[in-house]
This record gives sequence, structure tokens and C-alpha cells, in this order.
Amino acid sequence: MSRIWTIYLSGEIHSDWRERITDGVKAAGLPVELNGPNTVHADSDDCAVAIFGPEPDKFWHDHKSARLNAMRTRTLIQEADIVVVRFGEKYKQWNAAFDAGFAAAMDTPYITLHPTEHDHALKEVNAAAAATARTPEQVVQALAYIINGKMPG
Amino acid sequence: MSRIWTIYLSGEIHSDWRERITDGVKAAGLPVELNGPNTVHADSDDCAVAIFGPEPDKFWHDHKSARLNAMRTRTLIQEADIVVVRFGEKYKQWNAAFDAGFAAAMDTPYITLHPTEHDHALKEVNAAAAATARTPEQVVQALAYIINGKMPG
Amino acid sequence: MSRIWTIYLSGEIHSDWRERITDGVKAAGLPVELNGPNTVHADSDDCAVAIFGPEPDKFWHDHKSARLNAMRTRTLIQEADIVVVRFGEKYKQWNAAFDAGFAAAMDTPYITLHPTEHDHALKEVNAAAAATARTPEQVVQALAYIINGKMPG
Amino acid sequence: MSRIWTIYLSGEIHSDWRERITDGVKAAGLPVELNGPNTVHADSDDCAVAIFGPEPDKFWHDHKSARLNAMRTRTLIQEADIVVVRFGEKYKQWNAAFDAGFAAAMDTPYITLHPTEHDHALKEVNAAAAATARTPEQVVQALAYIINGKMPG
Amino acid sequence: MSRIWTIYLSGEIHSDWRERITDGVKAAGLPVELNGPNTVHADSDDCAVAIFGPEPDKFWHDHKSARLNAMRTRTLIQEADIVVVRFGEKYKQWNAAFDAGFAAAMDTPYITLHPTEHDHALKEVNAAAAATARTPEQVVQALAYIINGKMPG
Amino acid sequence: MSRIWTIYLSGEIHSDWRERITDGVKAAGLPVELNGPNTVHADSDDCAVAIFGPEPDKFWHDHKSARLNAMRTRTLIQEADIVVVRFGEKYKQWNAAFDAGFAAAMDTPYITLHPTEHDHALKEVNAAAAATARTPEQVVQALAYIINGKMPG
Amino acid sequence: MSRIWTIYLSGEIHSDWRERITDGVKAAGLPVELNGPNTVHADSDDCAVAIFGPEPDKFWHDHKSARLNAMRTRTLIQEADIVVVRFGEKYKQWNAAFDAGFAAAMDTPYITLHPTEHDHALKEVNAAAAATARTPEQVVQALAYIINGKMPG
Amino acid sequence: MSRIWTIYLSGEIHSDWRERITDGVKAAGLPVELNGPNTVHADSDDCAVAIFGPEPDKFWHDHKSARLNAMRTRTLIQEADIVVVRFGEKYKQWNAAFDAGFAAAMDTPYITLHPTEHDHALKEVNAAAAATARTPEQVVQALAYIINGKMPG
Repeated sequence: MSRIWTIYLSGEIHSDWRERITDGVKAAGLPVELNGPNTVHADSDDCAVAIFGPEPDKFWHDHKSARLNAMRTRTLIQEADIVVVRFGEKYKQWNAAFDAGFAAAMDTPYITLHPTEHDHALKEVNAAAAATARTPEQVVQALAYIINGKMPG
Repeated sequence: MSRIWTIYLSGEIHSDWRERITDGVKAAGLPVELNGPNTVHADSDDCAVAIFGPEPDKFWHDHKSARLNAMRTRTLIQEADIVVVRFGEKYKQWNAAFDAGFAAAMDTPYITLHPTEHDHALKEVNAAAAATARTPEQVVQALAYIINGKMPG
Repeated sequence: MSRIWTIYLSGEIHSDWRERITDGVKAAGLPVELNGPNTVHADSDDCAVAIFGPEPDKFWHDHKSARLNAMRTRTLIQEADIVVVRFGEKYKQWNAAFDAGFAAAMDTPYITLHPTEHDHALKEVNAAAAATARTPEQVVQALAYIINGKMPG
Repeated sequence: MSRIWTIYLSGEIHSDWRERITDGVKAAGLPVELNGPNTVHADSDDCAVAIFGPEPDKFWHDHKSARLNAMRTRTLIQEADIVVVRFGEKYKQWNAAFDAGFAAAMDTPYITLHPTEHDHALKEVNAAAAATARTPEQVVQALAYIINGKMPG
Repeated sequence: MSRIWTIYLSGEIHSDWRERITDGVKAAGLPVELNGPNTVHADSDDCAVAIFGPEPDKFWHDHKSARLNAMRTRTLIQEADIVVVRFGEKYKQWNAAFDAGFAAAMDTPYITLHPTEHDHALKEVNAAAAATARTPEQVVQALAYIINGKMPG
Repeated sequence: MSRIWTIYLSGEIHSDWRERITDGVKAAGLPVELNGPNTVHADSDDCAVAIFGPEPDKFWHDHKSARLNAMRTRTLIQEADIVVVRFGEKYKQWNAAFDAGFAAAMDTPYITLHPTEHDHALKEVNAAAAATARTPEQVVQALAYIINGKMPG
Repeated sequence: MSRIWTIYLSGEIHSDWRERITDGVKAAGLPVELNGPNTVHADSDDCAVAIFGPEPDKFWHDHKSARLNAMRTRTLIQEADIVVVRFGEKYKQWNAAFDAGFAAAMDTPYITLHPTEHDHALKEVNAAAAATARTPEQVVQALAYIINGKMPG
Repeated sequence: MSRIWTIYLSGEIHSDWRERITDGVKAAGLPVELNGPNTVHADSDDCAVAIFGPEPDKFWHDHKSARLNAMRTRTLIQEADIVVVRFGEKYKQWNAAFDAGFAAAMDTPYITLHPTEHDHALKEVNAAAAATARTPEQVVQALAYIINGKMPG
């Protein structure tokens, strides 16, 4: 099979989980294209005012940037074969849950990635997920199995 | 116009916002059908084990109930004309953001309802929303305008 | 046939074309439900700031109201069997053309209603239309034919 | 990311905005494919009669050509990742608004590009847009950010 | 089951097959709504010129009327549960085959109704059909079985 | 909520599970419309030859009837809010699994109903299900909870 | 633009119109991929019985082959950018009209190609078409204009 | 035609039918990409517990793996041009019937492959199929005909 699998990495931007998945799929030689949102926090907040001009009201400042970022995120989620949604230890991370709901409605399978302490709060998000992982390495193993049928270990 | 508008009230279950919207639309005589999730917290947690049998593992206990609840929530969101998504002062409320993402992907317009302190954390959710309200009464006013063209005051 | 036909009347709000169609279908006893946008110009401009609070910046003032109005117009266009799109003698009327494009993409048939002087400027909009009428009375006659097979005169 | 982004440039054909975007994305080395309508005004008016034969009635002359042009424009809009819709200083430009409505219904994000004097008349079109730009250079900056996360300046 | 089944009767307008089906479902007391095109041949040819004005060119005369009729036929086919497509002994009846293709693409099941002499020419149309009937009475029997489980005789 | 829930009962036709669900929802006063296939085995096998004429080849005898039955089953599954798929103790019951796959692709939630001995063989079908029940009474309890929020016991 | 346009050539198999279009697009250097049905008449009639075994009943002989051919034709029509539907001087050609209806429902633009004598009988098929051509050379000219903006002559 | 056809091979994993099809298309030089589920039985049962951790309850053990496998199978079925569904001599094979139902709902044509003894039990599955084959070689012949128009023998 010559297929390239497109994987969208949604959610937390404050830990190295994307790097660990990137390294893992490279080490495993998996035919994947990894996409995701802009992960430079300050830029994703300020992009629209930097380009289109300032907004004195913080609500519209945020609004303009969120709509600009959405052109990237929606496009990439819509063409993903699989979405990985990461919830870190802190922050509200409502955009991660939003992406999960979006993927669910589009029938795009997604894997959640979060510590067990979030299990109860994420039960609806997990119920619609195709799998729940605890580490980035498990995500890589899942991709290796899905794509190549390779079992871990 | 003889149309009945179907409104789905998603999110927080610990304050009286649904009652205030219910009272408001009744007082205004609006032709709406209000739907929402099961708001009895304990029941929504335990429904599936009560019906289908116990699960020693809390993850699957939650999972079974979340899937059972989803049969209600997905069906009602999918047929809603407008979704109202409420984020209260506390809790993670990831299922509310999930519902917003689901509605966005289905092209169902939604109104967010939350205090200003959540504005930044909800910027992606608000960017895809049709409106952001601060009080249940504003939601009622918005519905009165949408349906009957009635201005507030 | 016991069917009620849902007709959405889009576009110009400064002449009496909606009334003439309303009167015409009533006189003809046609089983139709006529819908349309809020036609009180000032209200459609100011609804959102009246409900959700003022915006010092006119762009966002307009933006909030346009998104609020869209909850009505999108919902009603999406459920229309037929859309009538009226272009009057003056004004840009880009929202009318926007509605036509929206209807075309949804495969909802639409009838344009405009004077001949707009023919060339509207050629793309007319090319995707199911008919082009010059008077509201022709629209009524078209509906009478579509619904009851009744020929004019 | 090896992705090529497909951008459709809709609207005004009487200024050099397409060239400025084309030059800008080339200078920025962006992986984009730029598409658009036939911009030779006379040809887009007369193409169908030149190919299929003359029409004495101008309405059908226009109609035949508009339908022929639509085979190009619809196909390219439907496969676009992002649409840019330009409204110039003059002309009705209803086909630009039509394209915006079409994109909105297809859930394809679009950026409007127009001077501030059109803000009020375009409020519905802008409300459904993902961004509003004032210059072609801002569009290029937006694309650079969306695709590469590159901030301007 | 309180369901009303919507049946669209497409095709030949020169024999009494619609009446025989209408009488048959009435005699059988079936809960059906029967729809179809305008069957007055002259009116379906001339409707648009009678309403919107004459066309010297027969091609556009036909074109305007066909587009007007399509507002009825498309709407009713799209909401039909089952389409019956009748091919009579003579005439080209390309619009009947067109309706069958349309129904096939919409995943609406259809029953063809035609004499055996057309079997070979209609093999593609029949291959996508849910059944092929030879008489209107067989169509009524099929509806009675589909709706009520009633066997013939 | 004045909503009527439409439930499709798919699968086994040799035990009284449909009657037990019918009795249960009646006893519970649930606002449901219960639909299902024709459950008279001989009729569902022979309907098409009885109506349209005999087939010497059993393959086509079956084929004609299966296509006729599909006009009922597809229509009713497509409009169901929830599908219940029953696998009994014996028989292949491939049509039940087919209906489950069909519902899954349509995003219609379904509940499987089967003894534990089938758990492993049905693991793919159950993984896409919203719930797995062991008795018809559990299905009724699930419906009572989904619709009215009523807990069992 | 590096795009390859996919064109499906539907209909008549007894004249050289496909060859003339093939030669024309080659001479014009158009970036097109031309597809179509199997045009060997005897093979398209007998393919299924040759592969899967004989059928004594001509109806099922035809049926099996038509379903086998449909795997090719449906797939290729669904991915076509533009369909050309040819109606020759004779034969019923119901499959061509079926393909046109299928394309119309899929929103795939199509060009009809037929002599003027069929104009009235094809009025519904032409009303949903994007253009009507009289010669294969006109089709080539239309493709050259659509793809490259090249005017004839 | 430079097209690559994507074929998904669903169902039985205990005989060599996939190898025979693979060898056949290679021998025939067909431009196909063959996909399918993971066919290592033990791995497909245990993959999820091997990656995400053990489950004491066999139901959830199966459930986790089935959901993990579904990320592969759903993705590949959804992009298949044609699905081949194999039912072997034994086992329940409900997942094969599930895949057929899924393909039917997605309008993806499928070919069933099974011995005649299953004909009656598979009549609904066959009625929605595009063809029924008895040997892998017939499937190869069908693909050769569909793709290249090549007749067998």
C-alpha cells in the first residue's frame, strides 16, 4: 500500500507531545503527513491584528485571530484521516474539545491523549473517540498498527 | 409564519440558566421547542450501568453512560435550528465545547453564553459562533428577534 | 396534494414587492408559507447592539448584527423549497446575490426578480436561476403553475 | 508539510489585484495554486456565442456565456481551500457576492478584499467571511501565516 | 405505523397509468401521497412564455418552460420515498430516464413500469431500479406490500 | 418535549422480541413510532414473484424479493432516530449486520441486542454501536432514559 | 494552473464523436483525462455472463451486465469535472439521459451534444445542462475556453 | 486512462482468496491498489490491549481492539472505488456483512464473493451488490473488464 496517512495533531501547545509523535513516526518509518495548528502561542493570538490592523477591544482582537487561525485548522482537520486530540494537565483547552466535536460530526476518527485524571470530565469526548492514549508513544504504536499492522514490542 | 423553532440548550447543568430561558420564552410567547441533555447529574453518570449492568472499571462505567446519553444529545443537536452553549464559572465543561464543535461542523448556528472571564479561552469557540451572550435574558431577546423581529425594551 | 410550499423572499426591502406577492398568493389561495429576512432596516442594523451591548467600532456593530440576522436567514433559506431573489432599482444589494449563491450551492431553485436594466450585471446570477421574473405578479403566476398547474389569464 | 494550497481569486477584473497577489505569493515562496475566472471581459461575455453560435436576444447571449463560464468557476471554487473575493470601487459585482454565498454554503472559507467604503453594504458577506482585507498584500500575509505560520514584517 | 408514503409518478403522460395507480391505492386504502409533473402537455410546453413573455426562438421557449417545470419536479422527486418511472410504447421519454438517473444519484428507490419490448434498451435504468413492473396494478400491489406487508390476491 | 422518536427494529424474526419491546414502550407510555421489516418469513421471500411473476432460478427469485423488501427497510432505517439490531441464537442473520453497517455509515445510532455468546463474533458491530443490550426490557429502559430521562426500577 | 480536467464522455457508441473529441483535445494540447463507458457493444451486453456464467433469461442476462458496467460508469461519472452526453440520430439512448440525470443530481456540469431535431424531446435534459453543442468540435472549443480561456478561431 | 483503482478486500481471513486476487491482478497488469483489514487474527484481537494496556473484561478487550481496527477499515472502505466482500464456508462473518452495509450506504459498489450455499442467507446483501462472484478469479476478470474493458478467455 502506497498510501500516505494524514494525521492532525490538535490541542495542547505547552508540552513536547507533538515532537515525540514526530520523532516516533520518523523512527518507525511510517508513511504519515503530520499537520496541526500554529503552535506559537503569541502568534496565534496576535496574527490578525498584525496583518489586518489593531483592535482596541480584546474580544475582537481575539475574534479576528481565531477566524484567521480557523482557515488553517478547519482545512487540515477536514482532510485528516485521523485526528489526535491532546488534553494537557492544565488550561481549559476548549478548542481541543471543539476540534473533537468537529471531527466527530465529520466522521473523522480521533484518538484522545490525556492523563487519567481527566477521564471523567472527558467521558463524552472519549465516548466518541476511536481510542484513548496516555502517552505519545502509544499514539505512534497505534499508527504503526493501523497503517502497517505492526504490533508493539 | 407558523414555524416552530427547535432550540437545543447545551452545557452547564449546575445553575438555573435553562429555567430562565424557559421562563423567558414562555413569557414572550415564542414558538419554540426547547431541548437539552438529561440534567440530573447522577443519572447521566450512572444510567448505563443501571440499565445494562455494573462495570467495575470506572472508565467503562463512564463510557457506557456517555454513549447512552449521546443517543439523546446527538439526535437533538442534529435537528436543532439553533444551539445555545453555556459555559459556567467552573468545571472543565469539555462536553459543551464538544457540542459547539459538532454544531459548527453540521452548520447549525449556535450562541455561546458565558461570563467575560472565559472570553480568551473560548475565542475559537466564539469565532465559530453566531453570537455571544452574557445572560439567559439576552438569549431570549435574541430568539425573539430572530423569530419575530421583536427588538428588546 | 396536501403539501405546503415554503418560499423565501430574499433581497430588496425598500419597495412593496413582498406585499404584492403575499396578496397575490392569498388571492390565488396557494398553499404556501412565505418567509423572509427582517425587513425593518434600522432593526436589522442595530439588533445585536440593542441586545448584547454597544460597539464603538461600526465594523463590529455591523458584524454582530449581520451574524444575528444570519441565524434567521440561513435557517429559512435552507428549508425553503423555492427562493425568490429581488434586486431593486438601486443599492448594491450584495446580500441578495449572496443568498442566490447560497441557494445555488444548496441546490435550492430560485427565481430572480429585477428590471431588465440589471440583466447584464446579473447574468451569472440569472444563469443559475430557475426563472427570471419582472414583476411580483409573474412570481405569483409561476408559483400557481408550479404548485397547481394553473396557467395564467 | 508538503501540501499545496488551492486559492480561488473571485471578483473584480478591472484592477491589478490578482497580479499583486500572484507576485506576492511568488516572492514569499508559498506553496499555492492560484485559480480564478477568465478575466478577459469581452471573452467572458461572448465565449458561448463564438463557440455555439449567435443569439439575437442579448439575454440569451449572456445566459449562454454565463453558463459556459460557470463550468470553470464552479469547478474551481468547489475545489478551493480558500476563496478570496474582491469588490472594487465600482460596478455591481453581484457575481462576486454570488461566489461568496456559494463558498459559504460549501463551507469553504473566504477572505473579502475591499475598501472600507463598502463595509456597511457588505456586512452580511463579511459576517460569513473568515477575514476582511484591505490590500492584496494583506491577503498574501494572511496566506503566509495560514500556511507557514509566518508573521508579517 | 402512521407514516404517509410519498410517491412520485414520473414519465409518460399519454395513457391512464397515473389514474389506475391513483384508483388502486385508493381502493386499497394505502396511506400514500401521490405526486407528479404537470401532465397537461400544452401547458408544460408553454407555461413560461405565458407567464414571463414570448420567445421567438423555440429552443429558449422550451428552455424557459423546462426550467419552470423543474422547480416542481425536482422538489417533488427529492422528497419522494419512492419514484415510479413509466416508459410508454412510444416517444423518446428522455425526461423519464433523466428522472431515474436523478433518483438513483439521490438514493431514492424507484420502480420502472414498461412493456417487455423496452427491456434491453432500459437495461441500465432497470439495473439501478428496485423493481420492474409491467402494469400499474403491479405497482399498487408492490406499494401495498411495502407499506402494509399485504400480499396480492 | 413533544417529539415522537422513530425506532427501527432490525434483525431476527423468529422470537417475540419485537412484541416485548412494543408492549414495554406501551406500558411505559413512551412517545415512539416502532418500525421494522416485514416479519412474515414466507412473504418476505416470495413477495416479488407473487407480484411481478415467477422466477425459475432461485437466485433471482430471492433477488427480486430482496430488492422489493429493501424499498421498505432502507426508507425506514434512513428516517429512524435509533435502530435496534437483534441477533438471535441461530441463523446467519447477515441482513441484521448489514443494517448495522448501513446505520453506522448514516450516523444513525443503534443498539445491539444479543446473548453474550455472540460477543466476540459481533465485536466490530458492537464497537460501532451506541449500546449493547441483552434483553428487550433493557432496550425499553434505554429508550425511557433517552427520551424521558427516566431511570429504571 | 497545473490542473488535469477529467471529462466523461457518455452516450452514443455508434459514431466517431469520441474519437473526434479525443483528436481535438490532443491537437489543442488540453490537459484533460477523457473517460467513458466500454464502447464495444457486444462486450457491454455480454460481459457478466462471460465472467460469472450464463443466464437463460435475457432480462437477468442484461441485468447482470448492466450492474457490472455500472461499476465503471458510476465511478467515472462521480469523479468527472464535466460530463459530455451525446444523443445520436437513432436509438432510445435512455442510458445517456440517465447519466445526465445522475450528473445533475451530483451537481456535475454536463454538456449535451445532439442534432437540433432532438431539441424538443431533450428540453428537460438541456435545461439542466451547462451547454448544448451540435458538433464534437464545439465541445473541444468549449473545453479549450473553460480550461485555458482560449477563444475559437 | 491513467487512473489507479482502489479496491478494498473485506471479510474472511482464513483462506487464500486475497492472495489469489493479488496474484491475478498482478498477472493481468491491472492498475489497482489493493487494501484490506489486518488479516493476522490474533493481532486484530489483541492490538489495543497490547498498545493501551490490558482489560480484564473480554467485552472491553474486544471493544478496544475493534475500535482501533476500525480506524483502518473505515478509512480504507471510504476511499475505495470498489469493495469485494468475501463470505467463507464457516464462521458468522458479521463484520463482512457490516462492511457491505457500510459500503451500500456510502454508495460504494461492492462485489460479493461466496459459495452458492450462502445465496439465500445473503439475499439482502447480494441485492445491494453490484455483482456476485464465486471465485477470486472471477473477481479479477470483473476488475479487468471494469478497468480495461478486457473480456475473459
